[in-house]
Amino acid sequence: MLIVMDKGVTDREIRAVIEKIERMGFKANPVPGAQRIAIGITGNQNPLDPEEFESMPGVKEAIRVTKPYKLVGREMKSEDTVFSVRGRPVGDKPLAVIAGPCAVESEDQALAIAEIVAKAGGNFFRGGAYKPRTSPYSFQGLGEPGLKILAKVRERTGLPIVTEAMDPEGVALVEEYADVIQIGARNMQNYSLLKRVGKSKLPVFLKRGISATMDELLMSAEYVASEVNYRIMLCERGVRTFADHARNTLDLSVVPAVKHLSHLPILVDPSHGTGRRDRVAPLARAAVAVGADGIMVEVHHQPEKALSDGPQALYPEQFESLVREIRALAPLVGRTF
Amino acid sequence: MLIVMDKGVTDREIRAVIEKIERMGFKANPVPGAQRIAIGITGNQNPLDPEEFESMPGVKEAIRVTKPYKLVGREMKSEDTVFSVRGRPVGDKPLAVIAGPCAVESEDQALAIAEIVAKAGGNFFRGGAYKPRTSPYSFQGLGEPGLKILAKVRERTGLPIVTEAMDPEGVALVEEYADVIQIGARNMQNYSLLKRVGKSKLPVFLKRGISATMDELLMSAEYVASEVNYRIMLCERGVRTFADHARNTLDLSVVPAVKHLSHLPILVDPSHGTGRRDRVAPLARAAVAVGADGIMVEVHHQPEKALSDGPQALYPEQFESLVREIRALAPLVGRTF
Amino acid sequence: MLIVMDKGVTDREIRAVIEKIERMGFKANPVPGAQRIAIGITGNQNPLDPEEFESMPGVKEAIRVTKPYKLVGREMKSEDTVFSVRGRPVGDKPLAVIAGPCAVESEDQALAIAEIVAKAGGNFFRGGAYKPRTSPYSFQGLGEPGLKILAKVRERTGLPIVTEAMDPEGVALVEEYADVIQIGARNMQNYSLLKRVGKSKLPVFLKRGISATMDELLMSAEYVASEVNYRIMLCERGVRTFADHARNTLDLSVVPAVKHLSHLPILVDPSHGTGRRDRVAPLARAAVAVGADGIMVEVHHQPEKALSDGPQALYPEQFESLVREIRALAPLVGRTF
Amino acid sequence: MLIVMDKGVTDREIRAVIEKIERMGFKANPVPGAQRIAIGITGNQNPLDPEEFESMPGVKEAIRVTKPYKLVGREMKSEDTVFSVRGRPVGDKPLAVIAGPCAVESEDQALAIAEIVAKAGGNFFRGGAYKPRTSPYSFQGLGEPGLKILAKVRERTGLPIVTEAMDPEGVALVEEYADVIQIGARNMQNYSLLKRVGKSKLPVFLKRGISATMDELLMSAEYVASEVNYRIMLCERGVRTFADHARNTLDLSVVPAVKHLSHLPILVDPSHGTGRRDRVAPLARAAVAVGADGIMVEVHHQPEKALSDGPQALYPEQFESLVREIRALAPLVGRTF
Repeated sequence: MLIVMDKGVTDREIRAVIEKIERMGFKANPVPGAQRIAIGITGNQNPLDPEEFESMPGVKEAIRVTKPYKLVGREMKSEDTVFSVRGRPVGDKPLAVIAGPCAVESEDQALAIAEIVAKAGGNFFRGGAYKPRTSPYSFQGLGEPGLKILAKVRERTGLPIVTEAMDPEGVALVEEYADVIQIGARNMQNYSLLKRVGKSKLPVFLKRGISATMDELLMSAEYVASEVNYRIMLCERGVRTFADHARNTLDLSVVPAVKHLSHLPILVDPSHGTGRRDRVAPLARAAVAVGADGIMVEVHHQPEKALSDGPQALYPEQFESLVREIRALAPLVGRTF
Repeated sequence: MLIVMDKGVTDREIRAVIEKIERMGFKANPVPGAQRIAIGITGNQNPLDPEEFESMPGVKEAIRVTKPYKLVGREMKSEDTVFSVRGRPVGDKPLAVIAGPCAVESEDQALAIAEIVAKAGGNFFRGGAYKPRTSPYSFQGLGEPGLKILAKVRERTGLPIVTEAMDPEGVALVEEYADVIQIGARNMQNYSLLKRVGKSKLPVFLKRGISATMDELLMSAEYVASEVNYRIMLCERGVRTFADHARNTLDLSVVPAVKHLSHLPILVDPSHGTGRRDRVAPLARAAVAVGADGIMVEVHHQPEKALSDGPQALYPEQFESLVREIRALAPLVGRTF
Repeated sequence: MLIVMDKGVTDREIRAVIEKIERMGFKANPVPGAQRIAIGITGNQNPLDPEEFESMPGVKEAIRVTKPYKLVGREMKSEDTVFSVRGRPVGDKPLAVIAGPCAVESEDQALAIAEIVAKAGGNFFRGGAYKPRTSPYSFQGLGEPGLKILAKVRERTGLPIVTEAMDPEGVALVEEYADVIQIGARNMQNYSLLKRVGKSKLPVFLKRGISATMDELLMSAEYVASEVNYRIMLCERGVRTFADHARNTLDLSVVPAVKHLSHLPILVDPSHGTGRRDRVAPLARAAVAVGADGIMVEVHHQPEKALSDGPQALYPEQFESLVREIRALAPLVGRTF
Repeated sequence: MLIVMDKGVTDREIRAVIEKIERMGFKANPVPGAQRIAIGITGNQNPLDPEEFESMPGVKEAIRVTKPYKLVGREMKSEDTVFSVRGRPVGDKPLAVIAGPCAVESEDQALAIAEIVAKAGGNFFRGGAYKPRTSPYSFQGLGEPGLKILAKVRERTGLPIVTEAMDPEGVALVEEYADVIQIGARNMQNYSLLKRVGKSKLPVFLKRGISATMDELLMSAEYVASEVNYRIMLCERGVRTFADHARNTLDLSVVPAVKHLSHLPILVDPSHGTGRRDRVAPLARAAVAVGADGIMVEVHHQPEKALSDGPQALYPEQFESLVREIRALAPLVGRTF
């Protein structure tokens, strides 16, 4: 149930609604909008009676919400979610270009790549200190030393840092060093982790699971939001299908579908989505053309020496050229870069 | 096996190679290129010995071809296939925009839509006279009267006609009235039909089957080419996956993958690919951005009255606006429109 | 719409209903059942008014049919469809075991394998004279000479012959020599072919397309039935998924699902379903355990020399051992063999 | 690399090999077999030289292992893994029948169902105290009070308890009360959790992720094994495909495929695999017929009142009847029950 308040509503009226919800044993989630405030009710198993609320002063309407997600849905909040990370806007007109290596391998490597990213015009730096790998025998990331290197990258370049947390215990450490906490595709339904980052002060970068439906992606975002962290960036990174010409099948049509139902920003990762360097630029262009709020791409100064996912990392020149293409494309879809 | 001839090769030398291939019981497929001629050998079950040919005068090289497709592969012919249909180029810099209703319903309907398409700048007209439908109780198309209407559309607007043939016997009738024969997704592996259109003088528009791999799509094109019809346009129209936010999952990454391996042009059909009118324009833009040679979209002057697939047909204004967007996008990817 | 007639209905009453349906421009499909006759109405685009029929003498009830398939659905006919082919029952208690090579390669090969099949207890012989192959360069079957060999197999062993027809023109020839016409997975939605075999006097063996939903399979059967051929055997033969440990993913749960909705018999082909000889027996056992009406398996006396699909063909001893296992299993699921 | 030792090897020789491996910076994993001991080397990124080991006394052979999993592969240990839980064998001839409700809802509910399970002949009890749910607003399980109820069930019925742990911190509590730790499908690639249960004294019940390949399932088992917990039961529970006639597509062919490559036992969960009560028994029979080491099914004394997954829970009589069917089937596939 969503309680939409009148435009001139008073604080006391708002408080009365919240108290009533809590007395019923449910949770009230006030969502301030540009025009008016709305209050989402969560925690109820069964539908509530709209009249219970519509008779209260200051209440414009009580709407039964049919979609399983509430806080992240447009019914709750029709305007796009916009926020900024160290001054870089997300979800607004300017596109976010998040770039960097798959994994932080050394200080030299990270700084070399970060300079390429910053110079070309990327506005966020990515790099994994903890790497979820299919095999226990693959490189698993540098851990805390990797986080320290990332902090140094930010210090040197000013780029906000996006990096992955792999379990609830690990979140605190990531919070200490990073600006955005990434949840990887394999952890999209790791609910303990989602609840933990829902309590974080940092924005969350939530990757779609390899076979997650759009509803499941939004429900996972709902887990984060229901713990009161509304600063969520969704990310399409390719899904698993029968098609074997690419590592995954990048599902670009999910971008307009998400935008239709949710107010959250959604980005696209064509590096994981294709797994091949020469496919990254065409699909990054397509991502911008389809309406994504940004892209996440892997860049490496020496891809052939990368400890993970080398074949999908762009060479520096390729990244620079991609940035130029995106700069030309952005205005055609009402964006800036 | 692919026999690459010398640049200054004589006709007699070419004939000698062809005769040798035929004496061995195989088929010789000469493929003229801009620089030099090559001769593909098909029909052999087992690998041939390159030396058998390399010792012949005029032969530069005999290459064992590893990919299962030969005639449609880049190894056989490295330059893009370019041809024109009633003066409209396909596979070249100018984009092909094929538009029209799902099915021809009446002369009035077809002409009304064709005028919208022509006026907005579409350069091909599509419309089904024969409709493969999942249910035997759904509208199956007007048949020959529909083809006659299509011929009238061409007469009136000058637009070349793309329409579907459903079985080998039906091809002759389609050839009488149309300019391009479409093979629908459900018939992508209807080999009797592929062989028949391989013998046609008309170009073939071959849609990817709903769960066809890229290799299977190219092998189906190979069926057509091996009957000597090289004028083939491939079309991505969405594949079947677990994702349920759209009717199909449009696999745009197949476009650069096909271009890498094959010289054939490839277009994208975002109407069937998404099944929803409001998703067509974003994905058509993405198709152009990813490097497709054109798009096929459904347009209807009264979609709510359409006898089939109404919900995915664009309104006239939507089509005009899409054409404008494509016009702006084309130069950014080295195209014209 | 389905018109259910009274138990003691007269022929004249039945005729009156059929004439009324035809006057309305639709098609009447009488379906005799053990208890009572029903008349399906097909060809109507829009729902009909039950009262139009319920007021007629002899009519018990007029039911709006919501499922898209009618003739093949249980709503139309609740008892299982049972028929026999040269004395071998299908759909009844006895299991059908259809075995033989992928393709007929020579008279010697076919007869050798047929003797193995007959001796072990198989009750149908399979073998392709026309082979739909992904590549135009693969062995495509012997054609009519292959059909003649199959006729000789029947003469020698008494086994009814199941073989594939690939296009409408080819059906007549298959009808001349075979007992059951197979429609391959790639042709499951070749509607021209389905309509043609719907007019045949022979039963149809309809394989599920590689990515067909259950509803699509039943709709394809409906195409056959709507041309008045009700003797249809469905066949699950594996679907295409992301899983890569087998050639296809055998979807055994479709068996009870089909049985719930349709009265048609359904068999399982574990040879194509797995693509590996050593997986055939376990999955054939599972097929019987799950309730299939029979199995279709490939057997070859010299699999390593087979011209197609050798790796999935059982050795003679493996087939004999499988038949023994099925014989033991059958009574546990209320079957005989 | 796998070091296979001689039959009459001495402890000192074994120790020498282990020390050498550790000096090289890798991890030595001794795997005792019935016939001889083998030592797996893990942690090396690059292939090692077999000669380094083959020259040592007591070493029979050093084998380069090509499959990415080592400890769980048959190359490392050819005999089936067999262990027992409170006297109930797993992986041996007797089948494991794990049954109980989806979630523990109350002491009364759990005890009522457990009595049904025990009486019918089930040999393990399942029930969730922590439930990973797609929606944050769905019932999430009773938590520790649920675990206490499970312990009471064991006390009362003697049935060993299988229950899920959702995160690394939660494992200790589950260890206190349960006999087998379940890892749910959504957590199959939650590597922090896998490593934690790899250090547990309890066996692990590892469910296949909804779109996990067989190799990924075995690699996740490898994570557990590489922490030295070798008592792992794998479980097929249906995968996500395009098919829409069931909640998931139960992939029974994975059972013989896993048995071919791995020595671990594998069970099948037809309740989640189909999502419908009336499909559970046919697919449970098929699971036994295909060679699974057991089944996990949901049973509820009042399914219509269940707080989660009611529609897939068997009624008591259905469970009793299923157990009778399995008892009859078992000897046909060389099993007992």
